[in-house]
Amino acid sequence: MERIFVSELAEHIGEVVVLKGWIHKIKDLGKVSFITLRDKSGLVQVVVENSKIVDLKLENSVTVTGMATANSKAPEGIEIQNPDFTIMGKAYYEMLPFEVSGYKMKASLESQLDHRSISLRIPKARAVFKIQEEIVTAFRAYLKERMFSEIHTPKIISSSTEGGSEMFTVNYFDRRAFLAQSPQFYKQMMVGAGFERVYEIGHAYRAELHNTWRHLNEYVSLDVEMGFIEDEFDLMKLEEGFLNYLFQHLSKTCAKELRMHGIELPEKLDIPRIPLSEAQDILLEEFEKRSPVGNIDAEGEVLFSKYVKEKYDSDFVFLTKYPISKRPMYTMPDMDYPGMTKSFDLIYKGLEITTGGQRIHDYEMLKENIVKFGLVPEDFSFYLDSFKYGMPPHGGFAIGLERLTMKILNLTNIREATLLPRDMKRLEP
Amino acid sequence: MERIFVSELAEHIGEVVVLKGWIHKIKDLGKVSFITLRDKSGLVQVVVENSKIVDLKLENSVTVTGMATANSKAPEGIEIQNPDFTIMGKAYYEMLPFEVSGYKMKASLESQLDHRSISLRIPKARAVFKIQEEIVTAFRAYLKERMFSEIHTPKIISSSTEGGSEMFTVNYFDRRAFLAQSPQFYKQMMVGAGFERVYEIGHAYRAELHNTWRHLNEYVSLDVEMGFIEDEFDLMKLEEGFLNYLFQHLSKTCAKELRMHGIELPEKLDIPRIPLSEAQDILLEEFEKRSPVGNIDAEGEVLFSKYVKEKYDSDFVFLTKYPISKRPMYTMPDMDYPGMTKSFDLIYKGLEITTGGQRIHDYEMLKENIVKFGLVPEDFSFYLDSFKYGMPPHGGFAIGLERLTMKILNLTNIREATLLPRDMKRLEP
Repeated sequence: MERIFVSELAEHIGEVVVLKGWIHKIKDLGKVSFITLRDKSGLVQVVVENSKIVDLKLENSVTVTGMATANSKAPEGIEIQNPDFTIMGKAYYEMLPFEVSGYKMKASLESQLDHRSISLRIPKARAVFKIQEEIVTAFRAYLKERMFSEIHTPKIISSSTEGGSEMFTVNYFDRRAFLAQSPQFYKQMMVGAGFERVYEIGHAYRAELHNTWRHLNEYVSLDVEMGFIEDEFDLMKLEEGFLNYLFQHLSKTCAKELRMHGIELPEKLDIPRIPLSEAQDILLEEFEKRSPVGNIDAEGEVLFSKYVKEKYDSDFVFLTKYPISKRPMYTMPDMDYPGMTKSFDLIYKGLEITTGGQRIHDYEMLKENIVKFGLVPEDFSFYLDSFKYGMPPHGGFAIGLERLTMKILNLTNIREATLLPRDMKRLEP
Repeated sequence: MERIFVSELAEHIGEVVVLKGWIHKIKDLGKVSFITLRDKSGLVQVVVENSKIVDLKLENSVTVTGMATANSKAPEGIEIQNPDFTIMGKAYYEMLPFEVSGYKMKASLESQLDHRSISLRIPKARAVFKIQEEIVTAFRAYLKERMFSEIHTPKIISSSTEGGSEMFTVNYFDRRAFLAQSPQFYKQMMVGAGFERVYEIGHAYRAELHNTWRHLNEYVSLDVEMGFIEDEFDLMKLEEGFLNYLFQHLSKTCAKELRMHGIELPEKLDIPRIPLSEAQDILLEEFEKRSPVGNIDAEGEVLFSKYVKEKYDSDFVFLTKYPISKRPMYTMPDMDYPGMTKSFDLIYKGLEITTGGQRIHDYEMLKENIVKFGLVPEDFSFYLDSFKYGMPPHGGFAIGLERLTMKILNLTNIREATLLPRDMKRLEP
């Protein structure tokens, strides 16, 4: 008999079914026990005579053959009766590191991460990654519909994109190489190479010396680059469109998972665009908060999000027109606002989740700008050369996948939105 | 007016349209010129009076506004008349490194890779990556339909999966780390963590000292791992199902690109399963070819594929039952064939594109096997620990994306199927 998933049980009431999964919970009621079976798709109650469960232990993996029966008293209204159990995978532990089926997680985040193959058995913890998977699915579907191509670019690179700091070095045969901080140069080159519109879902590496709730040293970057744009507002429109599409998609595909986390997504996003300098003024006036030159800091992001939420009822805000000195050398200057660039950040619930902007596409202008930044054009030769052959106006942005996941679910630490996080202290598991 | 793509022109005959793209070819006919415009989606002829094209140069990026007109003499039956050109991106070269619009590519592969943002402008070269993208799309769609979850696992790891050789080292803060050769341990752990069925599309790194037509030091691995399997034949069935699905999908979505490469895909795949030892015997009998112990070499793969093609009319063949000594320590032994494992390779047109098999799922058995292999269980503690909690029977396989792409299209070098290849000598672009 074919195995079915718990989520398919409703279509099989009155039939003998085969289920596979793990022993999630055992509730001894004297003559019988209620055993909760957990598979990828959900939980179901199995009613067993106690004489039959001598060998069963929490977290054994098992095959259960039994009668799918409607019972309004059972969770979800279905239970399995007259079961036969076969143990598929033995459990060798004396005590679980922490409870998988409890109402509240008592273990520290560190302990959960140390025992990732246990902590992910908790349905609410695994739900985070169902939502993360659907974010990626929506990202692809939205862009593919708009003629974007998916690309895969190298993560081992010969030189740094934006100066040499904060990069991991790799011993590449007899040379020193780096792990890419972003696919920036490559996604631009692929626009010019004729793909016009590209996206990449790939790892990015930052050797930052920050061990905080919002930093990872290895993360998944959702990168977009688009040719033939008018200006950076085309990009904000594209990202806003994606976020609207995403929230619709999640409401459809992850209703159960969102409910587990107590999340209700807004129906329609209208994201305000506010120049950075204006945001800085508002912070000063409304919160007596001083900002660093040409940016706002982490505290400023939180306060400004609060302001935007009250004033515009929006969890998101685009900050626009960052100064030239605070953006990389490839950022397009804004001729209408001297000293400023056609770039933006997206802040979501007090956290920056995107940096983007229009790029310089003219070869001579880019070369001059590299010099203006005190850098040497020869150090960027393969990148710069690709601008000699009719590079169109273009720009793009990147979204940190784990940050977006964290903020959608109101998680407090980015590691909860990372299957196997890498930080300054953690290389395992 | 909204820009349309060349592929959408047929729906706009008789209308003034806006196109964007690059000047692919200029054919001067005296009073007028035929200019071929190239965008992401295709090529179209634009008829211009010569007085109007003084500024146009090959590979300028441009906006063209003109009348879409049916003309049976034009390629694809459509041309643009009365065009206005606006240059979007200037060209700064004196001479192109090589011709983009020629009938035959005359530049060496090295030169094409050096100038990747030029060589990818050649429609036939870019078609490779349209097909590659659709391979990935099909892989995801096929697995998602079967309840597999997409995961992203770390590429910076603390220890080697299968011995320490052929790994790149990374300087990770004050520690030495490695670039992952495969997500092997992690995908198994995620099966046990309750995902049951997972796949990953991610980079894998091999510091192999081979600079051949079929090796890359960084490649994209299509990884699958599945829980609650019966044996390795479940996995072969899954992979065969995927390949059938893929060929159907490519025939539908990439008809034009396959035609450009002169490829016709078979309608139905029936892949023979042949034990390795039998293949070795056949090689000896039919081709007087001796094989190394417990494997066949590259030449053997080519000869055996020839044999299979003649005998079974199949481009694919599964080789099964590799000996224990030739497989990693986590491979499930085959109790019915002493000394053998429940593992397989898939050979496609003379090249191995997959290694797979059932894994050991019992904690004690795995621990013993690690010792038998002369390794130290403590070195694998986080991996081994995850087997203590009811790990179900499971297995998986991995497909090299670039190898599969190369073989589908009969390319002669794997670098042609890689956007920006990394090999012993190449770290740029």
